[in-house]
Parts: sequence; structure tokens; C-alpha cells
Amino acid sequence: MTLVLDAMGSDQYPDPEIRAAIDCSIEFGEEIILVGNEDILKPKLAAASGDKSRVRLVHAPDILEMWDKPVENAKKKPLNSMAVGLNLLKTGEGQAFISAGNTGGVMFNALRILGRLPGVQRPALTTLFPVKGGHCVVLDIGANADCRPDFLVQFAVMGSIYAQKTLQIPNPKVGLLSNGEESGKGNQLIKDTYHLLENCGLNYIGNVEGKEVFGGQTDVVVTDGFTGNIFLKSSEAVAKLITDTLKEELMSSFQTKLGAALAKPAFKAIKKMMDPAETGAAPLLGIDGLVFVGHGRSDARAMVSALRVAHQSVQVDLLGSLRTAIQERLAQLPASGANS
Amino acid sequence: MTLVLDAMGSDQYPDPEIRAAIDCSIEFGEEIILVGNEDILKPKLAAASGDKSRVRLVHAPDILEMWDKPVENAKKKPLNSMAVGLNLLKTGEGQAFISAGNTGGVMFNALRILGRLPGVQRPALTTLFPVKGGHCVVLDIGANADCRPDFLVQFAVMGSIYAQKTLQIPNPKVGLLSNGEESGKGNQLIKDTYHLLENCGLNYIGNVEGKEVFGGQTDVVVTDGFTGNIFLKSSEAVAKLITDTLKEELMSSFQTKLGAALAKPAFKAIKKMMDPAETGAAPLLGIDGLVFVGHGRSDARAMVSALRVAHQSVQVDLLGSLRTAIQERLAQLPASGANS
Repeated sequence: MTLVLDAMGSDQYPDPEIRAAIDCSIEFGEEIILVGNEDILKPKLAAASGDKSRVRLVHAPDILEMWDKPVENAKKKPLNSMAVGLNLLKTGEGQAFISAGNTGGVMFNALRILGRLPGVQRPALTTLFPVKGGHCVVLDIGANADCRPDFLVQFAVMGSIYAQKTLQIPNPKVGLLSNGEESGKGNQLIKDTYHLLENCGLNYIGNVEGKEVFGGQTDVVVTDGFTGNIFLKSSEAVAKLITDTLKEELMSSFQTKLGAALAKPAFKAIKKMMDPAETGAAPLLGIDGLVFVGHGRSDARAMVSALRVAHQSVQVDLLGSLRTAIQERLAQLPASGANS
Repeated sequence: MTLVLDAMGSDQYPDPEIRAAIDCSIEFGEEIILVGNEDILKPKLAAASGDKSRVRLVHAPDILEMWDKPVENAKKKPLNSMAVGLNLLKTGEGQAFISAGNTGGVMFNALRILGRLPGVQRPALTTLFPVKGGHCVVLDIGANADCRPDFLVQFAVMGSIYAQKTLQIPNPKVGLLSNGEESGKGNQLIKDTYHLLENCGLNYIGNVEGKEVFGGQTDVVVTDGFTGNIFLKSSEAVAKLITDTLKEELMSSFQTKLGAALAKPAFKAIKKMMDPAETGAAPLLGIDGLVFVGHGRSDARAMVSALRVAHQSVQVDLLGSLRTAIQERLAQLPASGANS
């Protein structure tokens, strides 16, 4: 197995990527290709510690910077590290691609170079949410702002496979994010999707709200990319508001400071829950290849976590399972076979 | 001034309502009408302590129960406490109506009995979110699952007046909830609304995400009722997950228990932030009358808080301001004058 890592993706590139590549190549016993500008990467890699025998550099002269417009500049810079890395998947040199760069840029390059899995209408950006007792798969979290009911059914199928393969849940419960649990609740998209999901052979539990999701009562949450993105970002923002307020209050007197010091082990659970490194990387499900997007703010530890997700996905043949599931399940549904 | 309180609304009705009515009639020095079934209310009111000279009972034989379907049963029970109470606003006997009952039931009865303010297309359920440094007005949080751009413009106008009148912000910043700050981000509804809001004379700051909202960077958040409801409920659910996890961890050892005891004052700020009693009640902005919905789980303290919001709204003539603003601002916009 060979994993392909975009060395120019994270905000602090390429140091976190180089460290993670070396550490993971040792941990997995597999080759890791670092794709990026050699002039920058060579001296940094040479200076890094550890056994580098399984790390290989592939040169990509162009760099997509944070301030670049993802689509426009990806076109202007065809030899950017994302494009070069994704081409290594296309040629079969690598089995999964990981980048902590701009999500729009990864999606654009992946669609152009690898295309969609046969039968998939829209790939979905997928993430794991920390919930009571574990994690929950949520998709789409931003790739498709406007969706049709049949897109959501495909998200449900792909999310279900992802939960099976990565969370080891044999028959994942699938919920549709709505403004009320009862059938009949929701906007028009949800109402139209509800009955399609009832008849698609998944373990569909109906509409879910925030309390079911964070209470750990569903394994997969299906939503359009607009709502999913707001769901994700508002959850992160609330968590930040609470922990920031708590920190401030805990530092406000000697007594609370002492209390905070004694209670420190308890805060670790919260910190762990909110740590992006815990969820690794978000796959672009529906692309004809294993493509993962890590947090831009990734440090080496978060990059290692992202590489572990990719490594596991190759091991369990996530792509093959997705391909089969889409062919099997969606052949039953009228409008979903067309690669439109 | 006379405030009209639905005595049969909260989960524990009518005890919280009776207590709050007595206490608020003393605090405000104003009459409060309790509307509900006299057979239940009379003995309870007689047994309650305090000066009851400003509390009056108005009989409503029918009770809309929690398990009743709001619209269907409101039709079958025309003399329910909501309907009787709202009629007191229509006849001018009362200036504001407050219920902790089912939101759908209040909305249905209010639309039927009071109707919409002239020019308003859809009333919006409006709430205050706790954010860094204070509160923020969010609407719609559930009345209209599917919206048109001109509905959202009306929500912006009404939310802006509400922030002026109740949060005393002279020129409230208005943000449009979206999946990205840049103009051009969003689903079709957001894209179509963005430019209308730029030209409606409000202090419009563009698209906002969770971090701007909870960071306190906007005073009014405009959204459709589907997205707004998910935004509200997921925020509440995340807050609950974090505080539940923290509580569990704090109780896990002697040391953390001791720490928690010492740090107790710091947790008060979080508790206060998440307390429904702090935000009082959600107005149905756009109804031709001052109508407020309190939390179903309201205790007497939360009901007092709800009555205070209603009392303040009458004092500052919120309804008159809304009527004027809608006439003035929306006369400038093409499709919004029609009461369709």
C-alpha cells in the first residue's frame, strides 16, 4: 500500500506533513509519498529525524496557497501538489490521497482528475461528530449547498457504508436531520426525502434533531451541504463559547483557579472531545478514489490521525464497498442510476 | 396595562403560571389575567400566597394538552385557553399574551384570531441566543420551514426592530446565516436574499457563520425556520453534551469532586448562560398583537421572566414600532407590500 500526502496543505506546511509521513511510514510499515515543491521539501526532509526509508518525494512545482481561490488557481496552477498527488491515485501508484488544504480545491481537483464513482450524482464531504458514547457520521457538511432528494439517498447509502467500515457498526442507524422528529416535519426537501429513505433498504430511523445526534442515538446523519455545514460550524462555535467562558471564569479568583487545577483530569475529556486530531480527516465520499481532507490547522499529531483514517480505509477496501453498495442499492431506485 | 397569561400552557400548569401572575402583578403594579379552566384555577389561586388584588381569572373551558395536535385540536376545542386569551387582545382588554404551550398551537390561534400585521407575509418565531458578551436575536427559529427571499427581508426588518426595542441597540448589525462569510456562499435562498438585504436600509453585515454569531459579532441573525430550528436545537444539544460530560468527569474521583466544589462559582456563568429563564419568551413577530411563547418546561421563575419580556415590549410599544417599520421599509421593496 502507498499513501499519498499533500505536503503543502496545512497552515504550517510542510513541517507537520513531513513529521507525520515519517512517523506513519514507520507505524504502518507502508510507503508514504510526500507531494510538493522539492526545493522546499528536500532540505526539510533531510533535516528531520527518524527512519525515512519508506518516505518518497514527488515533485509538484506549483503551490495552492491559503489565499488562492481554490477553483480559479487550481486551473492556473495545473502542477499544484493536489493535482500531482491525485494523479498518483489515477495511475495506481497510490491508494489514498490526504490533504489539509482548501476543501474546495481538493474537491475540484478530485472531480477533475478522478471523477465520480459510477452511479454517484454528487460526492459528499463527510465527517465524524463527537457524540455521547462515541462518534457519528455526518454528511454532507459542505460540498453541495443545494440538494435534491435523490442526492440525500445516495449520501445515506455512502454514509452507512462508511459507518460500517470505519466505526465497525454492522447495521448503522441512519437519521435525516430535521426540525422535528415526526414524519411530516421538515422543509420540502426533507419531506420528499423521508419516504425515499424508508424504501432504500437501510436501517433508517426517520428524522433526527440535535438531541438525538449528540445523544448518540443515530450512527449516520444525512443532510444537505448547507444545513450540514451550519450544523457543524455552529456546534463548534457553541463548544468554543462554553469552554472559553468556563476558562475565563475559572481564572477569575484564587479559589476557582485552585479548583480548576484539582479538576484538571475532568477537563481532559472535553478537550479530547473537541480535538480535531481525534476525528482525523473527512473523506470525499463518492469520488472514484479514496480522498481525505484534514483540518487546515492540523499539527503533526492531527496529520498522523488523518493518515491513520486513510490507512484504515484502504485496509478495509472502503472504495470497493462503496462501489458495490451504490451499484446494488441504487439500481433499485428509479432516478439514481444516471450519472447526471 | 393588562397582560394575558395562558394558565394551562406549561408542562406543570397551572402552578408556575399562578405563582408568576401574582408575583408579576405586584412587581409591575399592573393587572394580569389568568386564562384557563376556572374549576382548576379558582381553588389553586385561593390557596396561593401574596397580594392577589391585581390577578383576574377568565374562564376557558377547553384545555389544549401537550399530546393534542396543535392545529386539529385547536379547531375542535374553540374555547381553549389560548383562543380565549388571544381574543382578549383582539377586544383590547389585554396588551400582550403569553403562553408556555405548544408553539404550533399558539401560532395557529394567533393567526386565526389576530392575523398578521399589515404588509407582513409570514410571522417569525424569534428568540434570543446567549452569545459572547450578551444576546443576539435569531429568527425564524421554526415557524416557516420553507421561505422565500422576501420573507427573510421581512424577518430582518422585524428582528432589527426587536433588537432596538428589547436589547437597546440603536443600529443593530444584521447577519444572514450561511455556510461561509463571503458573498456568493450559501444555498440558492441565501444567494437570492443577500442582495435584497444589501438594499433594504438596515445595518446589514453580510453572511455570518456560527463563530460570528456566538462570538457576539452580530445582533440579529436572519434564517429560514428550518435552518434556524436546527441551529437552535443543535446548539442546545452540544451545550448539554459538554456540560453532561463535564459533570460526569467531575464526579469521577475525590480530587475532581473537590476541584468542582472549589470551582463552583465559575460553573454558575455557564449555568446562567444555558438557563431558559434568562431569555424569557420568544415573540411571534409579525402577528398583529404582542404574542409570546415560553418554554414548555417553564417553572415559576421562567414564567416571571417571560412576563417581564412581554411587559417591557408593551412599555416600549414594540407593536407600534414594528407596524411603522414594516410600512416604511417595505414600501421601498417591490414584492413585499402584498399581504399574500
